[in-house]
Formats: sequence, structure tokens, C-alpha cells
Amino acid sequence: MSENAVVESARRARDASLVLAGLSAETRNRALLAMADAVAARRDEILAENKKDIDAARELIAQGKIAKSDAKRLELAGSKFDAVVEGLRSVASLPDPIGQTLRATELDAGLNLYRVACPIGVIAVIFESRPDALPQIASLCLKSGNAVLLKGGSEAIRSNRALARVLDEAARSVQGVPAGWMTLLETREDIAEILKLDDLIDLVIPRGSNAFVRYIMDNTNIPVTGHRDGICHTYVHAAADPDKAIRIAVDAKTQYPSVCNATETLLVDAGAVETIWPAIAVEMRKKGVELRVDKRAKEALLGSGAGVPPVKKHGQDAHATGRHEQDAHATLVDATEQDWRTEHLDLVLGVRVVDDVAEAIDHVNRYGSHHTDSIVTEDPATAERFLREVDSASVIHNASTRFADGFRYGLGAEVGISTSKIHSRGPVGLEGLTIYKYILRGSGQIVADYTGPSAHKFTHRGIS
Amino acid sequence: MSENAVVESARRARDASLVLAGLSAETRNRALLAMADAVAARRDEILAENKKDIDAARELIAQGKIAKSDAKRLELAGSKFDAVVEGLRSVASLPDPIGQTLRATELDAGLNLYRVACPIGVIAVIFESRPDALPQIASLCLKSGNAVLLKGGSEAIRSNRALARVLDEAARSVQGVPAGWMTLLETREDIAEILKLDDLIDLVIPRGSNAFVRYIMDNTNIPVTGHRDGICHTYVHAAADPDKAIRIAVDAKTQYPSVCNATETLLVDAGAVETIWPAIAVEMRKKGVELRVDKRAKEALLGSGAGVPPVKKHGQDAHATGRHEQDAHATLVDATEQDWRTEHLDLVLGVRVVDDVAEAIDHVNRYGSHHTDSIVTEDPATAERFLREVDSASVIHNASTRFADGFRYGLGAEVGISTSKIHSRGPVGLEGLTIYKYILRGSGQIVADYTGPSAHKFTHRGIS
Repeated sequence: MSENAVVESARRARDASLVLAGLSAETRNRALLAMADAVAARRDEILAENKKDIDAARELIAQGKIAKSDAKRLELAGSKFDAVVEGLRSVASLPDPIGQTLRATELDAGLNLYRVACPIGVIAVIFESRPDALPQIASLCLKSGNAVLLKGGSEAIRSNRALARVLDEAARSVQGVPAGWMTLLETREDIAEILKLDDLIDLVIPRGSNAFVRYIMDNTNIPVTGHRDGICHTYVHAAADPDKAIRIAVDAKTQYPSVCNATETLLVDAGAVETIWPAIAVEMRKKGVELRVDKRAKEALLGSGAGVPPVKKHGQDAHATGRHEQDAHATLVDATEQDWRTEHLDLVLGVRVVDDVAEAIDHVNRYGSHHTDSIVTEDPATAERFLREVDSASVIHNASTRFADGFRYGLGAEVGISTSKIHSRGPVGLEGLTIYKYILRGSGQIVADYTGPSAHKFTHRGIS
Repeated sequence: MSENAVVESARRARDASLVLAGLSAETRNRALLAMADAVAARRDEILAENKKDIDAARELIAQGKIAKSDAKRLELAGSKFDAVVEGLRSVASLPDPIGQTLRATELDAGLNLYRVACPIGVIAVIFESRPDALPQIASLCLKSGNAVLLKGGSEAIRSNRALARVLDEAARSVQGVPAGWMTLLETREDIAEILKLDDLIDLVIPRGSNAFVRYIMDNTNIPVTGHRDGICHTYVHAAADPDKAIRIAVDAKTQYPSVCNATETLLVDAGAVETIWPAIAVEMRKKGVELRVDKRAKEALLGSGAGVPPVKKHGQDAHATGRHEQDAHATLVDATEQDWRTEHLDLVLGVRVVDDVAEAIDHVNRYGSHHTDSIVTEDPATAERFLREVDSASVIHNASTRFADGFRYGLGAEVGISTSKIHSRGPVGLEGLTIYKYILRGSGQIVADYTGPSAHKFTHRGIS
């Protein structure tokens, strides 16, 4: 789009947002169900466009320009398509996040204040190349009464166009849903334009790489919700149950290593380094995990007789290989401080021995990304201290860091995970797409009557 | 401070914030009471420094460099000093904003999720030249468990240093309160430095002029809470009660014209322009309000026989005079579109006639600053539509816009007023200085057990 067209889209979205804020839950839900029906009915049309994206991606793979996994993520056919339709229906069935009175206060007789949940307004979401993200994001925004500007990955452009066309037509077939409730942006230049429009756009949600989120934050005055890194920790305390520690550490690292809530660094208490750590190391190696160990963790393994492969220095092939396959031969590597700051998103685990919970907390707060951190211990006081003093969005006792997710947390749907310290923190559900307004209902009151010597007094009583 | 000293201060604040987050409410309240006692006990010391600021300001006034009112704002003596001490005590008595469980969910047997209120972390507050703002802001941050970096007006530097010294010593005399909980920054260069520290500072709250807040927003990646403009409206609908309309409009414009929640534009319904508007105009003129009227509002006055002074064109002296005294001779001026976008903060009122509530809503959403807007009407359906469709932090029916304030809203204390659409909107109380963390308490659960064909099911039951 031209610069003017982007501004025009944002203006239309702003106008649409004022209409959306006034729609009933019933209207919004009817639109969501119409969207589900339309996507199901126009499956062939959507998949034909999706196939063109996949074919184009295959050519790029053949030319060595993109990875095989990039094409896989584009695929919409089969059960993934059913999940899209099902997802739209399930958003319709979620409780309405809009219109509840969050608090009510009598300021004086006949002067009552209500704090009422309402949409944020206009939200721009910039997302990765999975085209199934588009219906998910569009439906969450519509459910919460927000207008949305969407920009997906360029590899999925045909799929996204088809989905956006079908969703927009279906939603607008429902009386009351305004044009401009959803707009698909198509180019990187479009993103640069919208980032300037802080008078028209209320929130930007970028989903993608660390560098990409940083770029967004560096280039806009619009508030941004998202997370850059997921440098999560599991701390095995001296009083940990060994079975729990092994199961939790292995799950946190290996159950799905490429996601943000996977553990990147294992902190081993000095009191567990001889007892529990060698068994964890053995299990990790079975899963093909490369262990980047500090001196004490290494020495414990060498003394344990657990059968340790040769230690490599950083910079040798272990560091260079990148992604590891599940059963590649695992290695021990000497850790450097850089490992504590690195989100591997892979079968690579930093391992550091700490003297006590204080040192563990200090490590997490210093090197972590305030995302999700877990302690394994049977000692309640130590657990409480860790939960209180670790400054992260999710702090966990005796469970895997992988639980930190909107679906598992019961939020119904996940907009993303936030490591911001304002508005929304941790997994963000529909509520993260809402704010409130104050509604004051009076009967002629003026402030002059509440000032001076004969001033009326405020009652400030809660109304139930 | 040097650049390094500022970074060092922010680091100390970050470290302090981790300690503050773990302090009990009792400790924080004891520190607040110690602060109140110390300020009361060291009154002479503080007022001696305050007098130096005032003397310096008087010289600047004599040289014509600052306005007389600027010196007035610096004064701490008398009842203002008592109010500072009282304010500290009253913050101690407010309910604790930290530690409450906001929501609790059983994810599965023995796996419970708690959403718990906690401090944001490190907050930078940049405030106007009133030195009494310093104890207020420092106490609200301590109450909410946040570390604070403070920068006040340079004219109040000696007063601020004395207050900061007394407050810091008193708070740290209480066991547990860490050094670095409060830091006073002194120069504009210090502000420029802290705006870069998005890894150490979680929130910036600027209080001051539109241009200043805009400068802050343009120069930082740290989230900013605040408001730029207060372009508030009062809409007198055709079905307004005339007495209420006159009282509310006059209060909203004149009760305290230089604050952000004063009304800047009066919207008069076409159905009220002949009936109610002339009487409002007469009352406004009695209060010395300059009326900047559109054509229809002017014609209604000319036809009403209400005794209208001559109309001036924009750009003549009415526009140039700036601040008006209460009983200056008022004038009628032809309004331009620029008036609808202007925060006069003075006895100047834009007046526009609109055909109906739709046009009123459109005007408010287009020209307003999403701060506070009021409708006067006896028609409930029209009121509901205005309250629903006006996109402002506070929407008011049959009361003055001047009510939009943390104290009047019963929030206990006001950090500021926000026109942001995320985190906090409208008057911001202590709650605006808090966020939440998720605490997950498990008994060995791993995510692998909740995936695949024989997966455990989540229960997602609310816990009371």
C-alpha cells in the first residue's frame, strides 16, 4: 500500500473501532460463527491459494533460500484446517470480555461511578508465517471489540489474502459489523508506516524473533505488548525430590525445545550436584541434549562414573552445529557466561552450580528474561522465597516451565506471552485486549459544591 | 550526575526493587510513618532550604525571567507543610495494593495457579516544580513496593534535596528498607540518560506540559503512563434540564480552569441553542469567560437579546492576551477549527452547535483527547449512547467534568491521569503502580503428561 493508503486503513480501523465498541456480545458472536461457517464452506478456495504459497516455498527450498521447516509451517490442509474452523467456534463460545462492571462506587447520593471493561480500540498484530495465526488473531480481536490491522509473513501472502477475504465478507454479512474491522497489510513498508500512527493505533503486538520485536519497540511510540526472549530456568534445590527433579528438568528442556517457555539454563544446588545432577545428565544425554556445564557441574559428572563423553571447548563443532536431532551424540561443553544469556531454542542446556537459593535467585534475576522460572524442592520455605523474589511473569514450584501458556493456564485463548511489566504479564488472554472506562452517573452535581467550608462530603461506598 | 552515575543509580534501584517486592505491608507502612515523623521533626531544616529556592525565584521574577505564580508554587510553609505530613500518614493508612490473589485456578489435582498483585519494579517519575509532589510520589511508590527515580523542577532543587534526604534517612531507619529505594535526579541530562535504560526501568510517569510528555514519549522505549492534553467537552443536549446544564457547564469551565479536567469546548444541541445556551452564555460572561463561538451559537445570542458584547475576529487581542483575570471584560470571538483542538487551560471556551447526539459524539471523538467528557440530558437513551460511544477515559452523565480525579473517584491517592489505552486509564491510583505475577504450585507435573493420546485433562476450575 502507499503511505496514504496505510493511513487511510488505520483511520477506517479507528472509525470501525468506535462502532465495534458498541456492538452486543450476541452480534460479535454471530459474526464469529459466520466466519467459521464461511471458512468451512470455502475450504477449496482457501486451500488452492495455500497451495500456491507452498509451491512457491518449495522452489525457494530447492534454491536453498529457506529451510524445509518453513514450508511445513505454511500448510493449512488436513486437520490444521479443521482446527482453524474449530478455533473460530471456540472463540465465539468464550465468555464476553467486554461490558462487565469491574468496580462500582457511590461517590455521593445520586452520583455513582462505574469502572467498565471495554475494548482497547485499534490493535496492530504482526505475526509469523503460519497462516492459521490470522483467523486466530482476527477472531480474538473481534471477540474483544477491537479493530485490527494484521500483517503476516510474506511467504503466506496468498493464504492470508484468501483467509482475510473470507473472514471479512462473513463478518460483515452480520448486521452491525463495520467495514474496516480487519485490514490485511502486505508489506514491510506498511509496518514502518503504521508504527508512526500513534494517534490512530493503540497497541502493537509483534510475534516473532527477538530482533524483530526489538525493531518494533525501537521504532514506535505506540505501546507494545510482547516478549523478546524466553531465557527460562529450572532450579534443582538440595531438598528436591530426585524423581520430580529429573522428570521436570527433562520435560522443561526437551518436551518442545524451540518454544519460549522451554528451560535454557539448569541451576543445580551445591547440595544436589553429587546426588541428583548426574542422573539428570544421563537422562538429558539420552534425549540428545548438549550440556554446557560450568566447572563444578563438570567435575561432579567426571567423579560420578556416569559415563561422560569428552568435553569440548566452546567454539568447536558443538557450538557450530546449530539444531541437533533428537538422537545425535550428545556432548559436554564448557559453559561461558554468554550461555547464561542465550536463548538456544534447541537441545542445548546451560548448567550452573549455585551455592544456595539466594545465588539461584540472583542468577535468574540477572541473566533471565523475566519470563518463566521453576524451582524443584520439597522445602516449603525455600520454595516461597524463590516464588516471591524471582521477578518473572511466571514462577513455578515443582512443575515444568512448559506450563506457562494461555491454554494450560485456562485463559481460553492466547494472544501471546508478555514480559512487559505493565498491562499484561505472562500468558495474555482476551483480557489483555481490553481496558476499562469510567462511567460517572450524576444528577446535576458540580465540583464547587464539594469544596470550601460548607462542602458536601464524598461517601465513597462500594456498590455491590 | 555523570552518565555512569545515572546508570549506577538505576542499577541500585533495580536491586532495591527486588528487596522491596519482598517487604511486608507492615514494614512498608512503618517506613511511611517514619517518613511522616521525620518530615515533621525536621521542618525548620526543610523550610530553610525551601526559602533559598523561593529567594532565588524572586530574583528571577524581578528580572522578568519567570512568572509570579511560579514562585508561589514553590512555597512549602504553613498549611502546605502540614498537608505533606498528613499526606504521608494517609498513604500509610491506605489498603495494601500488593500481595492479593487476584484469581486462583486449579489446573489439575495438585497443580494450582495464582495470579498475585505485585509491584511493577522501578518507576521513574518526572514532575513539575511543586516540591510537595516529591513526598507524595515517593510515598506512593514505597507503598506499592516500587523503587523510584525522581526528577523535580530545577527551581525546587534545594527543597527537593532536603525532602529527599529526610525521607530517605527515615525510610532506611526501618529494618529491611534497602538503599536505592528512592533516588533524586537533578538535571535534564539525567532524564535523557534514564530514558535509555529500558532494561532497568519499567515505567516512566511524566507530569507536566503537553510538549514535555511528548518529548518523553518520543525518546524512550520504556512504557509511559500519562496524558498530553485535557481537551474535555460538555454537551448540552436538547432534553437537558436548563438549571443542571447551566450549573454543570459553568462549574466545568470556571471552577478551576487551569487543570486538565476543565471543559474546553461546550457542545450545544440545536434543540437547546435558543432555549438554554443564551442563559449559559450570560453566566459564563459573569465569570469572565471568553466565548469562542461558531456561527449558529453567535446568531442565537444576537437574537436572544441577552446583551452581547461586540464580536472580535481571531488574531485580535482576545487571542493574544493569554491568561485572563476572573473579572476581565469578556468577549465573543469567532471560533476557528483550531479552537476545537486547543487546551486553553484558561477562561476561554469554544462553543459549537451540533445537530444531534451523533454529531456531538463525532466531535468529541475527533477533536477531544479521550480524557473526560460529559453529557447533560434528561433523556436516558441519549445519555447511554453518549456514554457508550464516546471513547474517553471518563464519560459523565449530568455531572461536571471536574469530578474526574483520583481523590473524588475514591482511589485514595492519585498518581496522575492517563489517557493511554493500556494498563491504566483515567485517574490512576496505587493500583496503577502494580502488576501481577503468576505463581504455579505443582507436585511434580510435567507437560508431556498432558499431551498425546493418553493425556491428562486440565480441570481449569476456579478456586475460591
